[in-house]
Amino acid sequence: MMRFSTLIKHPAEWMTGAATGNAVVLTSRIRLARNLARHPFPGWAKKVQRREVMETLKPAIENLPCMKDGFSKELEELDSVQKQVLVERHLISREHAARGEGSAAVIARQQTVSIMINEEDHLRMQSILPGQDLHHAYREISGIDDALAAEVEYAFDLRLGYLTTCPTNLGTGMRASAMLHLPALVLSDQIGQVLQAVNKIGLAVRGIFGEGSESLGHLFQISNQSTLGESEESILERLDRVITQVARNELFAREKLVEEDPDMVADKIGRAYGLLRHAWLISSKEALEHVSMLRLGGDLGAFPAGTSRICDELLMDIQPAHLQLHTGKKLSAEERDNIRAEIVRSRLQNLEAPDNRSLQTNGGDSDSSPDLGVL
Amino acid sequence: MMRFSTLIKHPAEWMTGAATGNAVVLTSRIRLARNLARHPFPGWAKKVQRREVMETLKPAIENLPCMKDGFSKELEELDSVQKQVLVERHLISREHAARGEGSAAVIARQQTVSIMINEEDHLRMQSILPGQDLHHAYREISGIDDALAAEVEYAFDLRLGYLTTCPTNLGTGMRASAMLHLPALVLSDQIGQVLQAVNKIGLAVRGIFGEGSESLGHLFQISNQSTLGESEESILERLDRVITQVARNELFAREKLVEEDPDMVADKIGRAYGLLRHAWLISSKEALEHVSMLRLGGDLGAFPAGTSRICDELLMDIQPAHLQLHTGKKLSAEERDNIRAEIVRSRLQNLEAPDNRSLQTNGGDSDSSPDLGVL
Repeated sequence: MMRFSTLIKHPAEWMTGAATGNAVVLTSRIRLARNLARHPFPGWAKKVQRREVMETLKPAIENLPCMKDGFSKELEELDSVQKQVLVERHLISREHAARGEGSAAVIARQQTVSIMINEEDHLRMQSILPGQDLHHAYREISGIDDALAAEVEYAFDLRLGYLTTCPTNLGTGMRASAMLHLPALVLSDQIGQVLQAVNKIGLAVRGIFGEGSESLGHLFQISNQSTLGESEESILERLDRVITQVARNELFAREKLVEEDPDMVADKIGRAYGLLRHAWLISSKEALEHVSMLRLGGDLGAFPAGTSRICDELLMDIQPAHLQLHTGKKLSAEERDNIRAEIVRSRLQNLEAPDNRSLQTNGGDSDSSPDLGVL
Repeated sequence: MMRFSTLIKHPAEWMTGAATGNAVVLTSRIRLARNLARHPFPGWAKKVQRREVMETLKPAIENLPCMKDGFSKELEELDSVQKQVLVERHLISREHAARGEGSAAVIARQQTVSIMINEEDHLRMQSILPGQDLHHAYREISGIDDALAAEVEYAFDLRLGYLTTCPTNLGTGMRASAMLHLPALVLSDQIGQVLQAVNKIGLAVRGIFGEGSESLGHLFQISNQSTLGESEESILERLDRVITQVARNELFAREKLVEEDPDMVADKIGRAYGLLRHAWLISSKEALEHVSMLRLGGDLGAFPAGTSRICDELLMDIQPAHLQLHTGKKLSAEERDNIRAEIVRSRLQNLEAPDNRSLQTNGGDSDSSPDLGVL
């Protein structure tokens, strides 16, 4: 299998694919929760039972075609920085990183598929793809699900569907989500209204970084709340429709901003660029905000194509554990801010100042004012 | 005489001279208050009496050798933007700009000498020089004072000295001041202590911009409070000694900052540079703060020699009336912020990013820790 250092040397494929085409929906992700029949859920299992489950599942997963030359480790084999790096890459959950004996992670070489063993459930399998591509991500993880189902027996009830530790996952065991970049809705103060509309139809929205409702970097995740009483296809279709609509709202808001207050937009983009290029101490929170504006600038034509890719990689690499791994030693908060600023400056050193005189929206459909009612 | 547009086309000589040598004391200024004998003070005078005073003084002043090819206008001949521009250049006072019939301003070509007629007193004459040069500035204005005294009779009392409208100017009628740039004392939180010490020995300290105690751009003016019972020479000597000491404190604080927290200093300078280079909307208050850091960066070797000169000219030119004059039309606050940012960007476009790796203090005397006690 692959070494940790090899895995981490490359950005995940889902991080780099969004550079073209989809400026608003950065990634689409499907996660399935599964458990083995006749084995206690991880929270109730004894160590020996957890280990038994892992020893059944780990080789079965490693043998999947998609896991060829992939990464596979028991969590006990990883140190805390390595685990934190996997969390920052969205490859394992924060909760999983805290688990000990009997838990493992198996990750595909391209980092688009990752499977946690003995997280809250015996199996948490996810597929992440760039852009708005929920159906494709679902097909991918579904194939893996089918392949595993041929090897092991899942805990399944004809009436309830897949059985899970937490009742909120019962049924399909599926959580589908997309990560959206919504700076114009935030800048134009429409975000609250949009999020409320999304909530009202039973979908969940939350900020990506910083947990809770705080939304750093204007990044939001929209996902399904319910997993029961509805088919996977129907859930995905509904979610996909809403995501399309929110993305259209964002593009419309960008168009309005550029039309009505181009100086404000140019100022935000220019300041973000100036600070990222020349700060010597920067927190991850502040960097996130500015990188978000840089990405918007790229989408609006102020920076050359490929800027979003730089942004995506930066977002990943300036996180605390990534920094620690990069420097190979424990860092104080001020050292982190210093090294973060250094990395940001060096990554952006060839990025020319924004061409703010030619701001343009490239995806908005200005004829049809988007209507939140259709959500 | 000189036209307004010609006067304003060039920066004042005292603005550009400080570029070399004196990094902390930007300018030295002497102002003398004088009144004509047997004429009521301007506040009590009738229009016709004010006009009479002006008609006596204006030609006498215009004929002074230092006023050859200078600027001379009655305030009624200037529009409000022009008057405001003169205020922003420290060539006339805010109070003088508000006066009408019978008031005038005569300004030397190099803008180092300017004389207000019928301000609070019949005559307010000032000399401004770059750097720490109070004695030279005094000699200059004193020569003018002597020349005028040969032409007109001053209101003078053998016991009280020169008689003035306000008793705080009685005696010498002299206000001597220096403008100091004290960013390191502010950043290291020592400024309060320094200002208190200066106040305690009977000198006044105030921020330059924004009036009152607010100090924008880390610029402070130190001046004498009392004008009575002490010779000009003794006042100047005391003031000069204090200014020298405060400047040494500032240089010592810079050295400490660079030594103990170079990343913080580099960060402040870098951010200021980044924002000034790339903002599209900037208030004068914010610009002042950043220009102050740019100037500090220049003093510390992060920017090439001559950067302080760019800073000084910027400080002048981004003020509201200067902007208005520059564009030739009335501007809204947002338009001002926009044009200000444009001017700043264009003035700085050839200034390379700060070389923060070679920060150094160039004037501190690190052997002797300065002692506020000697003030």
